Amino acid sequence: MEEKEIQARIEKGRSLIRTGYDPTDYSDYHTDQDLMKPQPPLVKAPMTDNIIDLPISFEGIWYNHDFLNIINSRSSHRVFTEEKMSLLQLSFLLWCCQGVKDIRGKAYATLRTVPCGGARHQFEAYMTIQNVEGLKDGLYHYLPMGHKIEFLKEIEDIKGFISKSLEGQSWAAKANVVFYFSMDFYRVEWRYGVFAHRVALIDAGHITENIYLASTALDLGGCAIGSVDGKYCDETFGLDGQNESIFYAHPVGTVSLKDSQKEQDFYAFVKEAGW
Amino acid sequence: MEEKEIQARIEKGRSLIRTGYDPTDYSDYHTDQDLMKPQPPLVKAPMTDNIIDLPISFEGIWYNHDFLNIINSRSSHRVFTEEKMSLLQLSFLLWCCQGVKDIRGKAYATLRTVPCGGARHQFEAYMTIQNVEGLKDGLYHYLPMGHKIEFLKEIEDIKGFISKSLEGQSWAAKANVVFYFSMDFYRVEWRYGVFAHRVALIDAGHITENIYLASTALDLGGCAIGSVDGKYCDETFGLDGQNESIFYAHPVGTVSLKDSQKEQDFYAFVKEAGW
Repeated sequence: MEEKEIQARIEKGRSLIRTGYDPTDYSDYHTDQDLMKPQPPLVKAPMTDNIIDLPISFEGIWYNHDFLNIINSRSSHRVFTEEKMSLLQLSFLLWCCQGVKDIRGKAYATLRTVPCGGARHQFEAYMTIQNVEGLKDGLYHYLPMGHKIEFLKEIEDIKGFISKSLEGQSWAAKANVVFYFSMDFYRVEWRYGVFAHRVALIDAGHITENIYLASTALDLGGCAIGSVDGKYCDETFGLDGQNESIFYAHPVGTVSLKDSQKEQDFYAFVKEAGW
Repeated sequence: MEEKEIQARIEKGRSLIRTGYDPTDYSDYHTDQDLMKPQPPLVKAPMTDNIIDLPISFEGIWYNHDFLNIINSRSSHRVFTEEKMSLLQLSFLLWCCQGVKDIRGKAYATLRTVPCGGARHQFEAYMTIQNVEGLKDGLYHYLPMGHKIEFLKEIEDIKGFISKSLEGQSWAAKANVVFYFSMDFYRVEWRYGVFAHRVALIDAGHITENIYLASTALDLGGCAIGSVDGKYCDETFGLDGQNESIFYAHPVGTVSLKDSQKEQDFYAFVKEAGW
């Protein structure tokens, strides 16, 4: 790439983040919500009939209760021990990152365990699941209304899919669950129009931070991943890519303190470069 | 704005989020880290000599310890009671959202209480402070190395500044602290180059989610705000806007259950529209 093209892309990226510098006159601009157009559904309808209830009572689950201890002990994990994850643990993770607590108005917005600008909750959670109690390995989709999941399909080489979908980050292939988040664009554009996309990305960080903290609470581990082949994920999960596209992932698996040296090996490049 | 222009902007926004659809050949592209160029400082140097230590032991602080209870009870708060916030509470909020736990390598990266892609931590936290124990009202900047803050300056009309900087959201003017997050662009571009900006926005959500949860733990409240006049904030806090710009805010203040009806009044438009 030419230096000039690189600089243009950097400037384009920065201009997406900056606010208050855009000279456009928006006084005659109205979003679809301003225009009282019908709003899109709050969640995606089930894609199959293979719906599975998740346990919703967490009374029986062991977790580290102390908030500050969780904040202090959270770190990235990339070495998984491939032990079984319980269905209750999976349920806890999904509840903490996308669970629906209430509905605002008749059907204006879902109120969830995670904040989202304008309560648009423009995300859908898809998953690869391996070695989770009571579930067959394969692709799944979270149904936040009623806290259920649906089984989408088996795939031949789940580890190969994970690795390729995450641009070759093969460590993630051992995760019991890899969350793949899509954005349903119009769900947030209805309210925010041309201003939607900047804040919609920030909202995604709210979700993954809750996954980090909930995983830490459960003594599980993982690491959010921005380097996702969204097109390949869309094709695999059956999304159109135009109105809904997968853009962010978060593998979670069982971990052990015994692997702390192996975790450090991922940072060998720092020592090699003398940084 | 013309319909054609609106559609072009929507498509530009979506294309920023999607991955795997860009036909550009990046095989000859290298980031500054790839090229072993010197990396920028991990944090911004103090801007003044007015440095104030923050208490770092949280043994004496009251907070709601239970993680799941915090997740379940978090909600947006826009009605503040204007009671005093303790310095220890402010310290807890800053620790939970930006605190430095360790350094990777000689000076490769800060490891913080919050995750960030590549541990770049490309953010600086600025604050308006009002009615916090032991601090004079004014503008401040967090110094994560050593967990300190620096007093930048007094301003004549702090409530007027808050309201204008948040595009007229005057409820925030009663917050004891408004966090204003800037992005120091090159800190993340050094590693990710033209790919930096998409994930850098998601990282911001990690921070604000920790503020939501830490506020909930302390029985304080607030609400992240994407509608920020970054140019006005940059001018007020003395940032150049080109290399560093404020783009996201989060007011936090004292709240009371007695104000729950007033909180609901912010959503009166839902009922009025019949949604």
